Amino acid sequence: MLELKVDLAERSYPIFIGTGLLSESDCFLPWIKGRQVAIVTNATVAAHYLQLIQMVLAGHDVTIITLPDGEQYKNLTTLNQIFDQLLRQRHGRQTTLVALGGGVIGDMAGFAAACYQRGVDFIQIPTTLLAQVDSSVGGKTGVNHTLGKNMIGAFYQPNVVVIDTATLDTLADRELAAGLAEVIKYGLIGDPSFYQWLLTNIERLTQRDPEAIACAIHRSCQNKARIVEADETESGQRALLNFGHTFGHAIETHTGYGSWLHGEAVAVGMVMAADLSRREGFIANSDVNQLVDLLVRVNLPVTPPANIGPDDFARLMAVDKKTLNGQLRVVLLKSIGSAMICDTFNQQNLRDCFESFCS
Amino acid sequence: MLELKVDLAERSYPIFIGTGLLSESDCFLPWIKGRQVAIVTNATVAAHYLQLIQMVLAGHDVTIITLPDGEQYKNLTTLNQIFDQLLRQRHGRQTTLVALGGGVIGDMAGFAAACYQRGVDFIQIPTTLLAQVDSSVGGKTGVNHTLGKNMIGAFYQPNVVVIDTATLDTLADRELAAGLAEVIKYGLIGDPSFYQWLLTNIERLTQRDPEAIACAIHRSCQNKARIVEADETESGQRALLNFGHTFGHAIETHTGYGSWLHGEAVAVGMVMAADLSRREGFIANSDVNQLVDLLVRVNLPVTPPANIGPDDFARLMAVDKKTLNGQLRVVLLKSIGSAMICDTFNQQNLRDCFESFCS
Repeated sequence: MLELKVDLAERSYPIFIGTGLLSESDCFLPWIKGRQVAIVTNATVAAHYLQLIQMVLAGHDVTIITLPDGEQYKNLTTLNQIFDQLLRQRHGRQTTLVALGGGVIGDMAGFAAACYQRGVDFIQIPTTLLAQVDSSVGGKTGVNHTLGKNMIGAFYQPNVVVIDTATLDTLADRELAAGLAEVIKYGLIGDPSFYQWLLTNIERLTQRDPEAIACAIHRSCQNKARIVEADETESGQRALLNFGHTFGHAIETHTGYGSWLHGEAVAVGMVMAADLSRREGFIANSDVNQLVDLLVRVNLPVTPPANIGPDDFARLMAVDKKTLNGQLRVVLLKSIGSAMICDTFNQQNLRDCFESFCS
Repeated sequence: MLELKVDLAERSYPIFIGTGLLSESDCFLPWIKGRQVAIVTNATVAAHYLQLIQMVLAGHDVTIITLPDGEQYKNLTTLNQIFDQLLRQRHGRQTTLVALGGGVIGDMAGFAAACYQRGVDFIQIPTTLLAQVDSSVGGKTGVNHTLGKNMIGAFYQPNVVVIDTATLDTLADRELAAGLAEVIKYGLIGDPSFYQWLLTNIERLTQRDPEAIACAIHRSCQNKARIVEADETESGQRALLNFGHTFGHAIETHTGYGSWLHGEAVAVGMVMAADLSRREGFIANSDVNQLVDLLVRVNLPVTPPANIGPDDFARLMAVDKKTLNGQLRVVLLKSIGSAMICDTFNQQNLRDCFESFCS
């Protein structure tokens, strides 16, 4: 078992990474202070893993809250279903919410934990590669709004994150690929040697080599933890993690959440952000092509959907959280393995980027 | 102008108390970092004070968000109306939300500020006595759920609180009385000399003597700040502030929010909690009678509505946040001017208390 500590003063917490951890009570019980526990999950994940968790929590009063599966349900209405059940089962302030599922479940259960009675304990069990390398570090929780993604939420840290790599056995290839988009992102924005390792080893990951997968999760979480520790509430450098996301969120909003996976939209967003970095003169054409090649090896999309136009991108990106007093900010690559936040780029380059990607 | 600092490390903020502060730009501008400001208010308050604030904020991009007036609208649906307008007007992370109104406006605008893009700046301008002495200190924000009051929310501190006592000129007598219930609470739970002052001076307050009012607001905020500073997230002693509230919330839930004012429900709740304290042998019958007399001088109710029964109280109080693993906790008076949190009281005494108050 690998262990990592996310160091955020009194909000610090450990991440455990290993095979079969869902059955390890030592990973859970020390972080549960009351008798009441509520497991938030969806039917797909519950079918595979709920029984294992229930065995570990046998001594507790457990409420199961099953949410509809999919990003399109990540909204205030579904959030309120969690509150309904917590209140009906009379969960008090000492309760612990356990998120068992992917990013949607983690974001909603975490936000529910942040808001229920103004904050209760929270344990995260991410079951997708994306959630394991992304939402397991940093405490970002929240829901979508029809006018923008993740616009309503809180920074709220879990008590512990338990990553059981065995849960990836039941993950669809498409979901695995979406997670690898974020893994590749960590290399691109701040870890050139990890990026080199990925260029060589990417097929070990797509073929689910357990050792390579655990290594990539650990390295990704380390990279994210280092950035989040320096900037918990995203007032500065944490925004680097949004590399590819400003473009990607526009795609997700345009397609209505749910038809594209987050990681797929991020893959396209990274290519577009790399293209803009090239237009700004920071990286070479060959760097962009190498990235496109790497993403294609993972079977990820590298161009936006056909029905989104340059004006759609311009409009949707203007409401993104990364606007500062109305000025769009994007994350660009200074070089492969080093990113920066930029709000002084050439607007025509951005327009050209949109035009070249929208056929 | 009186000034008070609420000392919460990096979340510390000042409270300014005085007449005519709504026109003092020095009370506002130093706490607004961006160009965008959203004023959250209701039509009643806006008619009196919105123009004054707009003059002070003349140099900013101001969005006015007018919510329906009343506790019955303090829910997730109304909260979402705030998010709708912030997103439509493209407010970014540097925006500042300004709550102009009573407790309902402050609770909702504060919770919206806590959640919008995971947290934006927040300025509070409480315009009722209740909001001035209660929600101006402590950062409790949130909305109601049909199954319980204030069940969804966040601890979120404002950047500054501006209390303009001139706003009380337009406050209805009934609202003023409701605010005085909380003022009396501060004396009861932790400030015996203030309680003695109130026994002598209560008519100066009901007759709106400006000097007495400013003094009572300052003393109340001081009392609350002292408790909140020691326990920001209500893990311990902060619960003392809930004296009378566990009973009071049951009344508010039973009557459906809105027909009783919060302070009126708290007034009855304080009498019932005092009665339970007497049954437990802590205070004398004469202490309870003196409290009832004081509340009657303020024209506050001292008995619950006719249609609530003992079983209603028992059921409604069981879902209150103050339950610990299912065990009801209430705040009792050890003596007049000193409160304690208690979960070991005699259940029969509680039942007798319910029976004696429900006719």
